[in-house]
Amino acid sequence: MKAVVTITRRQEIADPEGATIQRALVDLGYAEVDAVRVNRTVEVSMPGRDREYVLSAVRGMCEKMLANPVMEDFEIEILD
Amino acid sequence: MKAVVTITRRQEIADPEGATIQRALVDLGYAEVDAVRVNRTVEVSMPGRDREYVLSAVRGMCEKMLANPVMEDFEIEILD
Repeated sequence: MKAVVTITRRQEIADPEGATIQRALVDLGYAEVDAVRVNRTVEVSMPGRDREYVLSAVRGMCEKMLANPVMEDFEIEILD
Repeated sequence: MKAVVTITRRQEIADPEGATIQRALVDLGYAEVDAVRVNRTVEVSMPGRDREYVLSAVRGMCEKMLANPVMEDFEIEILD
């Protein structure tokens, strides 16, 4: 079973990478782009475990290591 | 209107960040984690434009700048 974790910076936290891409897109001719945010997703593969187990394990991984609890939120989606 | 672009490394391209996280998770006690892939998403906000326009513009941005056509695939989702 596989989990996809989407880790997003909280809205009030600056995103310098996104801001740089936004300026670059405007320079490239896309003047209407008014904001860009860059986030990351982490796919975790745990074969032979059921949905409940994977959800609970991946939540623990996010809290302990994958996400920064001060700056980031996370969402977990379980795929078959 | 907002577009969310998910940029994924092609399966045959190594993902050293994912491999490092996989080993760290095993060390942390999650021995069942057999693979981790890290991808990124880019949220592009283009207010006052319609769906067709945004989709076509964002496809152009991916081809020109956001994704690396040699190593990555991208998927565009339009949000209202």
